[in-house]
Amino acid sequence: MAAGGRTQHPDAQPAAQAADDDLIWGIHPVREALVQQAATISEIFVQRGKGGARLQEIIDCAKERGIAVRFVEADRMRAPRACRHQGVTARLSAARLLALDELLDRIAAHSSPLPPRLLALDSIQDPRNLGSILRSALAAGFHHVILTRDRSVPVTGTVARTAAGAVAHLSLCQVTNLSETLNTLKERGFWVFGAVAEPNAASIYAVDFSGPICLVIGSEGKGLRPLVRARCDHLVTIPMRAAFNSLNASVAAAVIMFEIARRSA
Amino acid sequence: MAAGGRTQHPDAQPAAQAADDDLIWGIHPVREALVQQAATISEIFVQRGKGGARLQEIIDCAKERGIAVRFVEADRMRAPRACRHQGVTARLSAARLLALDELLDRIAAHSSPLPPRLLALDSIQDPRNLGSILRSALAAGFHHVILTRDRSVPVTGTVARTAAGAVAHLSLCQVTNLSETLNTLKERGFWVFGAVAEPNAASIYAVDFSGPICLVIGSEGKGLRPLVRARCDHLVTIPMRAAFNSLNASVAAAVIMFEIARRSA
Repeated sequence: MAAGGRTQHPDAQPAAQAADDDLIWGIHPVREALVQQAATISEIFVQRGKGGARLQEIIDCAKERGIAVRFVEADRMRAPRACRHQGVTARLSAARLLALDELLDRIAAHSSPLPPRLLALDSIQDPRNLGSILRSALAAGFHHVILTRDRSVPVTGTVARTAAGAVAHLSLCQVTNLSETLNTLKERGFWVFGAVAEPNAASIYAVDFSGPICLVIGSEGKGLRPLVRARCDHLVTIPMRAAFNSLNASVAAAVIMFEIARRSA
Repeated sequence: MAAGGRTQHPDAQPAAQAADDDLIWGIHPVREALVQQAATISEIFVQRGKGGARLQEIIDCAKERGIAVRFVEADRMRAPRACRHQGVTARLSAARLLALDELLDRIAAHSSPLPPRLLALDSIQDPRNLGSILRSALAAGFHHVILTRDRSVPVTGTVARTAAGAVAHLSLCQVTNLSETLNTLKERGFWVFGAVAEPNAASIYAVDFSGPICLVIGSEGKGLRPLVRARCDHLVTIPMRAAFNSLNASVAAAVIMFEIARRSA
C-alpha cells in the first residue's frame, strides 16, 4: 500500500545491502552453475562493456533458462574486492524457485481440508519486507507463493534470514508475466483478490474468501501494476481507523492473510 | 513474538544505523538543549573517560529530567568525523514524548465514540519495527502509545521515516517502569492484554476486547519481560496455521490491533 510524500519512501530498500555471501563469480564457475544447477541461480550480473564468446554463451544460456541477466557498471558487480570476476557474477537463490506448472502440480498434490491459498507478490523490492511476508504467509497457511522475476528482490540470504526459516517450508514459484499467470489461475478455478489502499474498494471483512483464492500484494511504493490490477476479480482494502491510508506492505499482507485464515477457523 | 534458533535474530537491528542527522554535540549546545527544550532530547551519550564539572552538570541535569545517559567508547559517539564533540552528544527525538500523567489527560480529553485503546511497547529495539508499529497503530485507531525508556530504540529519524508521517498524529509517552505503569492503567479501568507466541494462550479471536484496553507487545527476541507479563490481565496469541510459531513483532502487533479494530466496526 502506498504512502504519499516526496521524501524517500519509508519502505525503500536501504542503500547498502551487504548480502554478498550469496554471490559466485568468474566465467567458469558461473557457467558451471548455470549448466548444473540453474534452479539455484536467481540472477546474473554482466559488466557493461565486457564481451567475448564465452560471456555471450553464459548470457544465452541464462536467457534460455529464464534467468534474469542484468548489465551493470563495474562498481555494481558487488564481487569481493580484488577478486577476478571476469565481467560476470551470479547471485544464488536461497530457495529453489518452481515454474508455474510445478507449483500447480504441488498444489494439486497438497492434501489439506481447506481450499488452496496462493499469495502472489507483484514486485516487492525490499528484502526485509519480502522475508517478513514469507514468514507471515507460512504462519497464516499460505503455503504457495508466486514471485515476479523482474522488478522484485531475489530470494537472497537477507530475505531467508528475515523469513526466520519459513523459506524451507514454502513452495516458491517465479513467473515472468504475472498478469498471464493470474489468467491461468482463474482458468483453474482460483478467485483473484488484489490488495489496494483505496477506501472505496471492498472491505476485507465483507468479501467472500471461500474457495481457492490467490491474494495479490503490490509493491511498497506503487501498489499493483495496471495489468495485474485489471486481472483481479475483486479489489479489497483494509478499513482504516484514521485519515491515514498507509500500511507497510508486509503488514498489509499479514493482516489480510490472517483475516482469511480466521474465516476458516 | 520470538523466533527460535541460534543464528542472528531475523528482526535484529542491522549493524550500521546511519541516523546521525538527529544528533547534536558539544558541551554548550547539549546543555542549552537540555535547559531550553529537554522534551526534544531522547538520550545523551557521554564518552567514557571524559570528566569535568561542565560535563557532570549535563549528566545531573539529564538525570533530573528523566533523560537516559549512556556512557560509550570514543568510537561509539557517532558524531560527524572531525567535529569537536568534547565528550558529549545528544540524540534529538523525532517526537515530543509525554509523561504518563500527560498521556492520561490527553486520553480523558480525547473525544471518541469508542473506548480508549492504548498500545504499550516493551523494549522494541529495531527502528524499522518501531516505525512500522507506529504506522499500523494510527491506521488501526490506537492513538496513544507507551514506550519504555530503557532497552528501547528512541524515536529517531529512521523511526519517524518508517512510520510514514504517523508520529505527528500519535500521542507518544515514555515511561521508566512499564509494570508500574500497567498497574496505574488497571486502576484507571484499563484491561491489559499481553501478546505472546504460545499456542496455549487465549486466541485473539476468542477474547473480549470491549472496554478500555491496553495491548502490550514484547521485544523482537525475548517477548514480554516477566514483570510486565505478570501484570497482564490476559495473555493472547494469534493462532498459527502451520507448525511455525513466529511472526515479526510489527506484523504481530498489526494483526492484533486490526482484529481489535474489526470488532468495533
